[in-house]
Amino acid sequence: MSLIEALNWRYAVKKMNGQPVEQEKVDKIIAAAHLAPTSSGLQPFKVIVVTNEELKKQITPIAFNKPQIEAASHVLVFAADENYTDEGIDAVFNRMNAERGLPENTTDAYKNQLKGMLLNRSAEENFNHAARQAYIGFGLAIAEAALQKVDATPMEGFIGAELDKLLGLDKQGLKSVTILPLGYRDEAGDWLVNLKKVRKPLEEFVIEYN
Amino acid sequence: MSLIEALNWRYAVKKMNGQPVEQEKVDKIIAAAHLAPTSSGLQPFKVIVVTNEELKKQITPIAFNKPQIEAASHVLVFAADENYTDEGIDAVFNRMNAERGLPENTTDAYKNQLKGMLLNRSAEENFNHAARQAYIGFGLAIAEAALQKVDATPMEGFIGAELDKLLGLDKQGLKSVTILPLGYRDEAGDWLVNLKKVRKPLEEFVIEYN
Repeated sequence: MSLIEALNWRYAVKKMNGQPVEQEKVDKIIAAAHLAPTSSGLQPFKVIVVTNEELKKQITPIAFNKPQIEAASHVLVFAADENYTDEGIDAVFNRMNAERGLPENTTDAYKNQLKGMLLNRSAEENFNHAARQAYIGFGLAIAEAALQKVDATPMEGFIGAELDKLLGLDKQGLKSVTILPLGYRDEAGDWLVNLKKVRKPLEEFVIEYN
Repeated sequence: MSLIEALNWRYAVKKMNGQPVEQEKVDKIIAAAHLAPTSSGLQPFKVIVVTNEELKKQITPIAFNKPQIEAASHVLVFAADENYTDEGIDAVFNRMNAERGLPENTTDAYKNQLKGMLLNRSAEENFNHAARQAYIGFGLAIAEAALQKVDATPMEGFIGAELDKLLGLDKQGLKSVTILPLGYRDEAGDWLVNLKKVRKPLEEFVIEYN
């Protein structure tokens, strides 16, 4: 199946059938997010994988009682770094140079310029920037899920501060930005499954300068 | 090629060889962005496709003289809506109901709740939200490019206000958020092509709650 076919097949499933997603497929979905390109390779986000039933029950009211949280076998939470730090940036470039067999100072000029920019911005600006990077990974996870014929429901409707506290993200410098429950559609019980996928006409989506 | 293989094959090409990308492939890359899921189906972004040589020359200094702009045959600019509007939200739900053969008022309760939320937020908050949706499409375009073996260089380094003015986006309620030049790598001339792709160890990227 091509990605275009997969994206036409997928939809934001409203009712899942409770069948668990195979761990091998979940691993590939996470791998896609892990391989996402990010600004200067900083990867300023993490993926939290919740399979614990009790924790899913506790997430449900935080996500406005959406039934997909408990019906999904794996609930992925994408959480962005609340700010960039000097040590965090050093760690990225040290790892990169080490894995490439290059001297540690190879990227110093670039790294120092980057620090000069990022570390002088507000935490809010940096979090917004980090969140956008998380959304690239989120898009790639959605793509890989669809290619694996795994259903997923992209969700922004939840109380971030409560979820961060529940998952201990606030103590790790992270803020949740999206949730992606993984499971399989309940074809018989989902009102959305047979409704047409609707997008803007292409001519309203694209502007061409030839 | 699987998406995981494609994501391992891709990298942020630093030098392109000038070979143009076939229009059929570009169309698929745009189709992937067009099919991206977005918050409430609002699709609050557009893709600007620049093939005009003169315009690419004018974009170059705005993008800090990155050579990929002129070497790419197609420069995609992702631009997010600067705010949500009452009419814009109506248009989305009217189209959706019409294409699904449903009465226009089918979604009124949901739509009015959504308007109550979005239209009472600041323009800045809504733009940040729209920008995140654009990044889902950006991620899917990167995925489809890699699957088509088309090279792409995700770019955030450009002066947004100048690009918006040049492309007339400021007059259309849009703000550019990313650039994606499309082309083919110059294997012989690109210093990055043979360097290892480096990512955080998976155990630093994933938090599991089993």
